Amino acid sequence: MDIEEFRKAGYQAIDRICDYYASLQERPVVSQVQPGYLVDALPSNPPEQAEDFNSIADDFQKMILPGITNWQHPNFFAYFPTACSLEGILGDLYSSSVSNPGFNWLSSPACTELEQVVMDWCAKLIGLGDHFLNKSGVGGGVIQTTASEACIVICVAARARYVRENPEAKLEDLVIYTTTQTHSLGVKAGLVLGLEVRALPVKPEDEYGLRGETLHQALAEDHAQGKRPFVLIGTVGTTSSGAVDNLEEIGEVLKEHPSIWLHVDSAWAGVAMACPEYRAFGKLDAINKYAESYDTNFHKASMRLNSWGLVNFDASMLWVRSRKNLTDALDVTPEFLRTKQHDAGLVVDYRNWHLGLGRRFRSLKVWFVLRRYGIEGFRKHIREGVELNEYFASLVRASPSFELVTTPSLALSVFRLTLPPSVSSELEGKDETTVRTAQNDLNRAFHTRISAHSDKIFLTQTMLNDTFCVRFAVGAQRTRKAHVDAAWELVQENAREATEEWLQQRTKV
Amino acid sequence: MDIEEFRKAGYQAIDRICDYYASLQERPVVSQVQPGYLVDALPSNPPEQAEDFNSIADDFQKMILPGITNWQHPNFFAYFPTACSLEGILGDLYSSSVSNPGFNWLSSPACTELEQVVMDWCAKLIGLGDHFLNKSGVGGGVIQTTASEACIVICVAARARYVRENPEAKLEDLVIYTTTQTHSLGVKAGLVLGLEVRALPVKPEDEYGLRGETLHQALAEDHAQGKRPFVLIGTVGTTSSGAVDNLEEIGEVLKEHPSIWLHVDSAWAGVAMACPEYRAFGKLDAINKYAESYDTNFHKASMRLNSWGLVNFDASMLWVRSRKNLTDALDVTPEFLRTKQHDAGLVVDYRNWHLGLGRRFRSLKVWFVLRRYGIEGFRKHIREGVELNEYFASLVRASPSFELVTTPSLALSVFRLTLPPSVSSELEGKDETTVRTAQNDLNRAFHTRISAHSDKIFLTQTMLNDTFCVRFAVGAQRTRKAHVDAAWELVQENAREATEEWLQQRTKV
Repeated sequence: MDIEEFRKAGYQAIDRICDYYASLQERPVVSQVQPGYLVDALPSNPPEQAEDFNSIADDFQKMILPGITNWQHPNFFAYFPTACSLEGILGDLYSSSVSNPGFNWLSSPACTELEQVVMDWCAKLIGLGDHFLNKSGVGGGVIQTTASEACIVICVAARARYVRENPEAKLEDLVIYTTTQTHSLGVKAGLVLGLEVRALPVKPEDEYGLRGETLHQALAEDHAQGKRPFVLIGTVGTTSSGAVDNLEEIGEVLKEHPSIWLHVDSAWAGVAMACPEYRAFGKLDAINKYAESYDTNFHKASMRLNSWGLVNFDASMLWVRSRKNLTDALDVTPEFLRTKQHDAGLVVDYRNWHLGLGRRFRSLKVWFVLRRYGIEGFRKHIREGVELNEYFASLVRASPSFELVTTPSLALSVFRLTLPPSVSSELEGKDETTVRTAQNDLNRAFHTRISAHSDKIFLTQTMLNDTFCVRFAVGAQRTRKAHVDAAWELVQENAREATEEWLQQRTKV
Repeated sequence: MDIEEFRKAGYQAIDRICDYYASLQERPVVSQVQPGYLVDALPSNPPEQAEDFNSIADDFQKMILPGITNWQHPNFFAYFPTACSLEGILGDLYSSSVSNPGFNWLSSPACTELEQVVMDWCAKLIGLGDHFLNKSGVGGGVIQTTASEACIVICVAARARYVRENPEAKLEDLVIYTTTQTHSLGVKAGLVLGLEVRALPVKPEDEYGLRGETLHQALAEDHAQGKRPFVLIGTVGTTSSGAVDNLEEIGEVLKEHPSIWLHVDSAWAGVAMACPEYRAFGKLDAINKYAESYDTNFHKASMRLNSWGLVNFDASMLWVRSRKNLTDALDVTPEFLRTKQHDAGLVVDYRNWHLGLGRRFRSLKVWFVLRRYGIEGFRKHIREGVELNEYFASLVRASPSFELVTTPSLALSVFRLTLPPSVSSELEGKDETTVRTAQNDLNRAFHTRISAHSDKIFLTQTMLNDTFCVRFAVGAQRTRKAHVDAAWELVQENAREATEEWLQQRTKV
């Protein structure tokens, strides 16, 4: 492909992306294809001869787009919706045009330095303390691929620090602490490091946030058994319900255990702290006071992904109080990677701050987005998401057929159907498990039914302890009040139908 | 940014990328900025108000491009040059426009299925056996971010398998085997898993490739000490010199140790096997016969990056003989990630094949490149790189002032300056170390001098055992014979000057 062919194909791509966004609302939310649709459609061998680019581009429209679940769709309320922005797409485009590995400063100075600057911008945007800034020269920020990888990096650094301080420690005794509500990143870190993970219990009355007393007890139990907890992964804004661990209490307990590293994962909720009014919710003060590391996603698309960061996947922002803990744990500098700038200590070589070696030029899209929106525009975007969710929550509250399971958390509501009055009175006096089982059955039936309309709406389910719930997550950039109204209509309609059917089946049994 | 503003900005971006490629040859190879150039130039806070996109795009030209080391430059002979293709940029652009997380099938069927198909295409392109195909339903391929991450994933899977089979094994006794020439990915995997890494010695007379006998001895020693090697990272095409481990011998030794996992890393050299004539060099038969897993990069930019895959960073292709070994080690499926397709075993959920959760839609750019080039075009591209390197090696061979340190490996030559006759005769009869030290000093002086011309040419250094060498790696898509000629002129000129200066200093001392 020569430059002029690229220009033509590039214009065409831009035009088609414009068409895609203009028609987004008419597309199904969830892809309606069947498993194997593409595997069966494509040849099983690569072509012998070169193909014309036009036919490749046409196949993208014909074969790929129908197999895409539209995370940016205004009716996407599942997981955490994605707010991929057009600015982010441009950032990615410029970035892939120069496509630089950025593993050390020399391999592309712009790549390293823009990341240093942008990470400081993001830290200031959400109110992190100066000790997390790259400018501090001691702490600093780095863009990771996902919050899961950030968590692995942190666990590796925490283990290395712990073992340095406690050389007699056996790997078999090391324990990673999470809660039962921690994202799967906790379990995955355990699998990767090969270490035990203990999920501490949380209670409905604490809105599923970890309390200091629970931690205190667990530490006593584990220490008595010779176990060595060395890192606690706290969460601000869990995936299931947006729960928040009580970081003040946790921080105070950990004061007596300075070798235990407190990592705070706020993959979804962190960017909300761009708005001062959500900083108390986001536990900003406790994070600045107690956390050794903090992670939030500015990108959009994945389970945890922040719907709000407006940056295209991937951009998980990780800050640490001490960069030396990362480089002590991860530095590999063979001869062919040495540069005079690194040897002179003049520059940051980010390869020693993460798992891979090469890395994408990811700061560019963040830079584009932050400049194009400004702090003002960024805040406006966050506030709109929270307002839409508050509106949804008010609809749930006002309905006799539904209830909120937890207090709405920023742009996430967790709700469920209540039992119909006839069943409620029938079960009166029965034990808690019987009642919960009935309500779970009803809500599973409801979720199954609404999932059948995945071309129109997408909601995901979750379990909170033993309670089956449905999640409503706002955040796609194009979602407006009218979409929430339409979603609520669908929710009510499907709930009615599901309840009727469930009642009939119940009578039969 | 609305759709029409995006269209305008998108056209502009395409035009500017065209300009960039058209002017590439006039740009410096290595960025000439000083440390801190960008940190100092940018404001330390994000802007309060939204900025106009034009000024952002202009700043990219003004501030970012000068800080870019041009890996695609025809005079880039360092590390392994990058052959990012214009097709790859378009693939990335389309991919970021739909920006899908792809962590399970439902989250975007196209994302998962295209990866399944494309990985089979790539496997066939380089001749891998049917047992590595996704179609086999048992083995399969997955795109990882980097070869380093692929190696971590494999070590995690290998450890999990080993511990399942040997539940009494202590983590402290586990050992990862590499050679002294293995890429830093081996050491990094050890750091991440927290396990011992033993680098087995290799010899110049074996062209720095691992022999079966060395492995055999190491196993005997380690087993005698109660150590438990559980994975061997073999290499086909090391970073330093393109060395190849003797996989036939290694495979035979490991037959007696079935619990040791053989991973073959061929990050740089693997795609050369697209040409049948390089399959013997690439150890294809031994890989198909003995390897449990195999990795090669189709992307371009990083230390190991294949200059040849023509795909933009990142696309490290990993194949395994048994996908179950990956999912057994890495599966995390909480309630909110369950889908009926997964529960029914109908689909692949790639999140359990790698470290993160969310993932980019990376197969798209590979699909674009393979179709646009066809097998024919892909092979042509590989052969051109090898021919240019053979040409360079012939120039070295014909010169009395230089010598090849190892046999040229595909598109990589490792060479050094010979000692000037006066010094040679002066040192005649001296011990090997004295001679080597002198020659190393001379070559360091040469490399330092040529590095000062990094606007015109970029070469990297390496150590082979105790020998300092200079690497010449071909592969940027725009490199032609004229560029090699010009490079050779610069090499000779700088060698002459460096030698003269070195001789003068030597006399002074």
